[in-house]
Amino acid sequence: MTAQPAAPDVFHLYDTTLRDGAQQEGLRLTVSDKLKIARVLDDLGVGFIEGGWPGANPSDTAFFAAAAAGELELRHAKLTAFGATRRVGARAADDPLTRALVDAQTEVICLVAKSHDEHVFRALKTTLDENLAMVADTVRFLTGEGRRVFVDVEHFFDGYRANPAYALEVVRAAAEAGAEVVVLCDTNGGMLPAWMGEVVSAASDIGVDLGVHCHNDTGCAVANTLAAVDAGVMHVQGTINGHGERTGNADLITVAANLRLKYGWPVLSDEHLARATSVSHAVAAITHVAPNARQPYVGQSAFAHKAGLHASAIKVDANLYQHTDPRLVGNDMRMLVSDMAGRANIQLKGDELGFDLSDRDLAARITDVVKQREMDGYSYESADASFELLLREQTDALDPAFEVQRWRVLTSDEVSEEGDSEATVKVRVGDAVVSRVGEGFGPLNALDHALRSALETEHPDVETFELTDYRVRILETGHGTDAIVRVLIDTTDGERSWTTVGVGTNVVEASWEALHDAYLWGLHTRAA
Amino acid sequence: MTAQPAAPDVFHLYDTTLRDGAQQEGLRLTVSDKLKIARVLDDLGVGFIEGGWPGANPSDTAFFAAAAAGELELRHAKLTAFGATRRVGARAADDPLTRALVDAQTEVICLVAKSHDEHVFRALKTTLDENLAMVADTVRFLTGEGRRVFVDVEHFFDGYRANPAYALEVVRAAAEAGAEVVVLCDTNGGMLPAWMGEVVSAASDIGVDLGVHCHNDTGCAVANTLAAVDAGVMHVQGTINGHGERTGNADLITVAANLRLKYGWPVLSDEHLARATSVSHAVAAITHVAPNARQPYVGQSAFAHKAGLHASAIKVDANLYQHTDPRLVGNDMRMLVSDMAGRANIQLKGDELGFDLSDRDLAARITDVVKQREMDGYSYESADASFELLLREQTDALDPAFEVQRWRVLTSDEVSEEGDSEATVKVRVGDAVVSRVGEGFGPLNALDHALRSALETEHPDVETFELTDYRVRILETGHGTDAIVRVLIDTTDGERSWTTVGVGTNVVEASWEALHDAYLWGLHTRAA
Repeated sequence: MTAQPAAPDVFHLYDTTLRDGAQQEGLRLTVSDKLKIARVLDDLGVGFIEGGWPGANPSDTAFFAAAAAGELELRHAKLTAFGATRRVGARAADDPLTRALVDAQTEVICLVAKSHDEHVFRALKTTLDENLAMVADTVRFLTGEGRRVFVDVEHFFDGYRANPAYALEVVRAAAEAGAEVVVLCDTNGGMLPAWMGEVVSAASDIGVDLGVHCHNDTGCAVANTLAAVDAGVMHVQGTINGHGERTGNADLITVAANLRLKYGWPVLSDEHLARATSVSHAVAAITHVAPNARQPYVGQSAFAHKAGLHASAIKVDANLYQHTDPRLVGNDMRMLVSDMAGRANIQLKGDELGFDLSDRDLAARITDVVKQREMDGYSYESADASFELLLREQTDALDPAFEVQRWRVLTSDEVSEEGDSEATVKVRVGDAVVSRVGEGFGPLNALDHALRSALETEHPDVETFELTDYRVRILETGHGTDAIVRVLIDTTDGERSWTTVGVGTNVVEASWEALHDAYLWGLHTRAA
Repeated sequence: MTAQPAAPDVFHLYDTTLRDGAQQEGLRLTVSDKLKIARVLDDLGVGFIEGGWPGANPSDTAFFAAAAAGELELRHAKLTAFGATRRVGARAADDPLTRALVDAQTEVICLVAKSHDEHVFRALKTTLDENLAMVADTVRFLTGEGRRVFVDVEHFFDGYRANPAYALEVVRAAAEAGAEVVVLCDTNGGMLPAWMGEVVSAASDIGVDLGVHCHNDTGCAVANTLAAVDAGVMHVQGTINGHGERTGNADLITVAANLRLKYGWPVLSDEHLARATSVSHAVAAITHVAPNARQPYVGQSAFAHKAGLHASAIKVDANLYQHTDPRLVGNDMRMLVSDMAGRANIQLKGDELGFDLSDRDLAARITDVVKQREMDGYSYESADASFELLLREQTDALDPAFEVQRWRVLTSDEVSEEGDSEATVKVRVGDAVVSRVGEGFGPLNALDHALRSALETEHPDVETFELTDYRVRILETGHGTDAIVRVLIDTTDGERSWTTVGVGTNVVEASWEALHDAYLWGLHTRAA
């Protein structure tokens, strides 16, 4: 095949999940979501994390404040603040939004600038020269404040089509004012790979380092990014899972995996690349956007093969049937329609938890139970504690610390200091039967308080138990309010953390099951 | 930009949703599903519909039998049967699978042939010469039976990399035996656009018409297809919504829309192209695979805008902010409300809903309210009904059909036929104050029944209201059970559907707010 160009000495993987990715319809990130995602991105080894637009909205401002206050420690990536060139007719130093960029206290700032003449006339309502001055002034002011400045020239490809001379003028203005990288943005996403080379080459003549920012409106975001790399850009912008406005942005993991595995460029270390799949899934868990099973490299189906025709040959040589080794990106090859895999898996997990499941019949029976439970909506891959309780039930190795005889919870619009919900639970603990009342905000909080108070005399350890996370997923929609609900609860006792799962036709029932198992597992393993 | 090559005199859009698309993990198509999808594909105006592999499995055989029996009348597309070259050492005429292809009674047959030497050795376990003979014999036999024959050379790009001379030999053998089109298949999906031209050009020298079949393992299925077209192929294979094994196949709608709208090639008529969005959604409804909102051209979000920055300019000229006119593919531009929204965005949304927000102060005040609400966790972009209620409150244009005075709901482990929850609501309707009890599975279901019964005397319309979807999202995790919860509820009255949002420290409170707004909006707009 065609030889690849040599890797540039410096190459930037620039992530904008927290800013451009957050523009996706239905995606809303809280400050704590953003902090979590930034930490995950740092684990992936990207060079730059664009955190948002300080001053443009309250949560982005709060995010940078939290980061500056030390809530975000990055080992690898540089946190970047995004903003715009100064207002028409203003001085950069006097523009409150430019000030907000300085106040964000990041080493790197990425400015968006207009490069399409029609956008200057119609959106900025100013002259072409003033736009050039806005770019130059803002870059000079921020470099003068000691910042490294990248400039996103938005609508560059449409602008180049409409007025190539002016589009290039804007790149030149940014470069001459001291921009470190000028990023050519296909803001409307209408480009095709065959068109990229000519435009990027024209900008290359200016002599500044170039980047590219692509959207997926033609289904070519990744390919357009690669075409720009072929034409010489050394900085690529994208988002995890391709999040973004409209059809989304270039999927940064797919781009990085292609550069690493197809071009052989060292844009990510082997250790970082091997985290790609877990990073993709971790971000999906935080954004609550279900992961795409068909996502390149990291999708659950990305290396799944239908059994049958292929199966025997795949055993001979898997590489005849996959374009790369899934382990390189932390993924696995999966043979579908194969319950052997299921049983082996469960035996493996049993070993992990210290259960001897070498007995084929026992392992097969447990496999059937697990399969039935998962068909009902349970998910054990993320709920080890519930899985261990299931194993103990199936192997008669469970001596429950308590037994629930009755529970109920009342929620109303009458809110007291203790909350809006009141729960009662009746449990047998040892020889005693205890009934307790608990109040709280919401049914689960009230049930938690009631169960805790019923157990604390016999099991004072429960005081150390804290519920740290609570996730709800509706499994069958379309049935209105009687959908199937899955709840996952994370609990910690300060030393260990464990996750339990509950499923039911309603969120309270499912939450109660997960809460019940959380206490049962926590007390059982303490007793043991 | 670079000029496109001229459109070939003949160009094939070849759909394989029913065969290769059906290889997707979790996708199961019945014979009637396949008949429905084939009719939808015919509406899209594709040239060829690959229906399956007759003889390989009962349902594919039954599908072709049903089509031959007149259950499938195609106005535009040619139905195609897929099969393999004859068995090693057999005569094509005697091979039952080859026979089954003839019995499928299609004008066109597509044969899969091996072109990678390692696959000949390891999967077929035969010689390179025998594989060439298998290709030639089977093509000759089927053309002798009066069929048009296309040949998919599988693993061609890997095969060309391993043994270019042999890979090309297979193409030549198919061509000389009378194949009308030889389709180069990137079966493992590992190709990149920059690599396509060289390989396709090498095959072009043989002088037969070429096609391409791409998978999305590098995220480049669409771009690889276009690169092959640039290199001269006149036949492209793909699937609706990119269905297919692993990461899926090239999305045929995206490919066709790019060729029609970016290259200007007449691969689809304007009328056919305008059906693209409905075709994509119709297929999603039949496959029960949820449509991808971010899908190029046809996704629900493909032309949705949310940044306030943009909105002001979108009012001036939408084409500055979209790469093509969404109506050309039967889609729409949509404005989203979000905490990134500026006043212009809110005004646009108001216009959509028939509110005059031209008053700057009013629009600014409402914008502040929306921003604050979204900070608190509300999301209006997907909850138009709640947004309209907010606008009515802010403009004193709301005359509520009812007022809630009290509500409460009890959930317990005591399950009756009516459910495990009991709710009471006290509402003022007109001059009357009504208290009602409702039972149900889960608190929301019980509250729904109670509210419905309290309203039905005064507002019999509520009988037509049905809750069709219910989504819960935990916004602030890390606080355990007192997290902030957002609930979205979709409601329909048979004619219209609307979405409402509720937020609270607990799922019951948030659900109640969304439920309350769902009834309020439904009744208000009915009264209006």
